[in-house]
Amino acid sequence: MVSKNQIKLISGLHQKKQRFVNQLFFAEGVKVIQELLQSNFELEHLYTTLNDFETVQSSKRTLINEQELKKISALSTPNSCLAVFKIPAEKKIIDSGLILALDDIRDPGNLGTILRLCDWFGIKQVICSKETVDIYNPKVVQATMGSISRVNVNYVDLNVFLAQTKLPIFGTFMDGDNIYQSSLPQDGIIIMGNEANGISSEIEKLVTSRLTIPRFGELQKTESLNVATATAIILSEFKRNS
Amino acid sequence: MVSKNQIKLISGLHQKKQRFVNQLFFAEGVKVIQELLQSNFELEHLYTTLNDFETVQSSKRTLINEQELKKISALSTPNSCLAVFKIPAEKKIIDSGLILALDDIRDPGNLGTILRLCDWFGIKQVICSKETVDIYNPKVVQATMGSISRVNVNYVDLNVFLAQTKLPIFGTFMDGDNIYQSSLPQDGIIIMGNEANGISSEIEKLVTSRLTIPRFGELQKTESLNVATATAIILSEFKRNS
Repeated sequence: MVSKNQIKLISGLHQKKQRFVNQLFFAEGVKVIQELLQSNFELEHLYTTLNDFETVQSSKRTLINEQELKKISALSTPNSCLAVFKIPAEKKIIDSGLILALDDIRDPGNLGTILRLCDWFGIKQVICSKETVDIYNPKVVQATMGSISRVNVNYVDLNVFLAQTKLPIFGTFMDGDNIYQSSLPQDGIIIMGNEANGISSEIEKLVTSRLTIPRFGELQKTESLNVATATAIILSEFKRNS
Repeated sequence: MVSKNQIKLISGLHQKKQRFVNQLFFAEGVKVIQELLQSNFELEHLYTTLNDFETVQSSKRTLINEQELKKISALSTPNSCLAVFKIPAEKKIIDSGLILALDDIRDPGNLGTILRLCDWFGIKQVICSKETVDIYNPKVVQATMGSISRVNVNYVDLNVFLAQTKLPIFGTFMDGDNIYQSSLPQDGIIIMGNEANGISSEIEKLVTSRLTIPRFGELQKTESLNVATATAIILSEFKRNS
């Protein structure tokens, strides 16, 4: 059974402020929870409707019914389980290899999909501007499908971070060089811009290599690619010859 | 003002069955509606909260207030306008060039994003299995950002269609050839599979070229790419040397 206080706590974790105050977040579904358990995330408590997760010590595991799960879940169709984890301390930034920097990505689904892509392409470090959606937002956690445990994410003042780096800084713009014909290094920072406004003008000034993904459809018609699909194309292009 | 009958009609169009019965669908937002008006879609009626769209004849245009828009909108935060269009007759399949075939794509956001990618990469023809989500679903129309007017989409029995084609048929699998090292033609059919199950076993038998997108992250960890991001990588790879 889940207590009223537990329901109150978990409901609070839907909001960024309460996640910060409690230093807790939650994940749903067997696959995502298993991946977090197997990595370095510290379990606070597991709520499950099934007699599963036998490896989790019984004091940290509560059997609940579907009505109770519905009360604490962020999903319209709840899975079978929900687990509350401690938010780990931010690790040191890995400042070599390919780094993805996100300039105010606001949509949780986009951030989750981007982290999944980073995991696929072996990108170890993601740098987010302070205005980027919180990675512990339940929709982000869900969309990462567990990748959150394998990509190092830091929130920084992006201007300050980029101003001090010695790595080349890549951004995509309408007037950039054709990415398919550019020589792309294995160390560098790739900036992805906000869904509506693209890369902000302050960040644009710090870009050292302007790239473009050529369009093949009717000119002037397709306005833009979704930021997650653009990230997919760019990471594929940086990695294909590595 | 919008009448009760109009509200009933438009609310019905949220469902596939009523779209089929009435042969109507709707789109929301200035950008998407403008793109549909400029292409060959026939306007049934436009509802707008602003005195815009002056080029639309007044008998087909109704000024409504925000409360009325909220009643007919499919969006949680309605835009300023909603337009009902006639569903056009399916055009003949263009059976040359690169064709994308969708084997039971169920998520409207994924289908919309895929159509936007096709538009970007100049893919003129998309073939959907009968189980693929309806392109006139409001969430698909919205996610296409207007691309729906520039990509020819047909719903067919995919097995039958693929069994008769003379074009090479490409699919991505865990055990396929590295897509980055494969010679990719400019004519062919690329199959994208269902979100949960991938390419179905019946369709897999018809594939003539098995490809794979290599993963660069930890082996056996990242289970899969989202179907829209996988489509982005595959289309980029087919088009980059064209």
